[in-house]
Amino acid sequence: MQNVQALLFDVFGTVVDWRNGVAREAAGFLRKNGILMEPADFADAWRRRYQPAMEAVRSGQRPFVRLDILHRENLEAVLTEQGVNIAGIDPAALAELTLAWHRLDPWPDVLTGLARLRERFIIAPLSNGNIILMLDMARRAGLPWHTILGAEVVQAYKPTPAAYLQTVDLLALKPEQVCMVAAHNNDLAAARDCGLKTAFVLRPTEHGPGQTTDLHPEQDWDVVVNDFEALADALT
Amino acid sequence: MQNVQALLFDVFGTVVDWRNGVAREAAGFLRKNGILMEPADFADAWRRRYQPAMEAVRSGQRPFVRLDILHRENLEAVLTEQGVNIAGIDPAALAELTLAWHRLDPWPDVLTGLARLRERFIIAPLSNGNIILMLDMARRAGLPWHTILGAEVVQAYKPTPAAYLQTVDLLALKPEQVCMVAAHNNDLAAARDCGLKTAFVLRPTEHGPGQTTDLHPEQDWDVVVNDFEALADALT
Repeated sequence: MQNVQALLFDVFGTVVDWRNGVAREAAGFLRKNGILMEPADFADAWRRRYQPAMEAVRSGQRPFVRLDILHRENLEAVLTEQGVNIAGIDPAALAELTLAWHRLDPWPDVLTGLARLRERFIIAPLSNGNIILMLDMARRAGLPWHTILGAEVVQAYKPTPAAYLQTVDLLALKPEQVCMVAAHNNDLAAARDCGLKTAFVLRPTEHGPGQTTDLHPEQDWDVVVNDFEALADALT
Repeated sequence: MQNVQALLFDVFGTVVDWRNGVAREAAGFLRKNGILMEPADFADAWRRRYQPAMEAVRSGQRPFVRLDILHRENLEAVLTEQGVNIAGIDPAALAELTLAWHRLDPWPDVLTGLARLRERFIIAPLSNGNIILMLDMARRAGLPWHTILGAEVVQAYKPTPAAYLQTVDLLALKPEQVCMVAAHNNDLAAARDCGLKTAFVLRPTEHGPGQTTDLHPEQDWDVVVNDFEALADALT
């Protein structure tokens, strides 16, 4: 790991708690529109459509569109599934709820950990979230990224190899000089296949108290830690 | 200007003093290789090839390549013009000098001005410099950008309209919600043609003591100031 010059971070689940954040943002909307669904279940339902929506882009079935657009389509699909007539919803409220993903809070160890890591490494998100989503989130939460990188910059969604390799190329680094930081084994596996170093951060409640996935490292990742403070301890 | 949410900055000349910086970086190289050229003249000669090199991309004559590559080609051209045999130069020294543009200092008012502007606006470079160039420069100089935007992100060099319009689109803003900040009338004219707001910052010694261009605003730009402190005064 001593040649690593840049750390690229997965964001949803790794840096921010999307489930509680989206639930908080959705609660008022659900109540106001008489939708009888637990906010956390609503967040889960919305998130379940995330991978299939990106897969349409990854497979070449549709051209690249930013995640805000997929989030909007998925929101409408979840509401329709709940029997809601979209045409009857206030358009401004729908637009506002779509941006819930811009207003997520980091896990408690993130700001202090990133502040330490920033002194030594280039730190940037490599998320499937689009640029303005990441930018709004960073400004609201105080995430000290050096820049926003990710799917929209390279027009490719993770875990497509191009998402990792083109990002590394933008940094004028070799893959082994870059470390992917994620709470998801599949993200790290794809990064490792591209030659990047890998750091696994355990986020055992990303999917709520009953989480069954990503509770353990599935490969011998270069670093395995419980939070960003421990990541900073390991790398600085 | 009250609807403006993001400020996009030209960088070479507007944010940083490229002429003195490149001259400083080149001085040792010129001496060591016995090249009898004033460092400031060398900087000017290198910079004179900047617009023609980008024009090859803008005109469609060649595909988009990042500025680091154009800087390298232009450096070799300037050296060859001086009768230097490139093959006789230490490749590492050539590579290092190419990156001189990553190590430029901001004008004295920039850091304090940007710190104030950052509190109210999204601030980002919209430069023809590539991402890692802007990132290295920002880390070295302490430029507090929220993110790096610019030619490489949208694969279009200013003043091509796509450079402005696609950047505005990434921010999910309307052109009139974005203000271009530059010391160059032609940059602002192109931005205005795309519907952006415009702020002219006077940099009367960008080209040295005998500068003849961009000493006055050539249109009624929305803001005209002498430095970034005055820009912050005007906008906050």
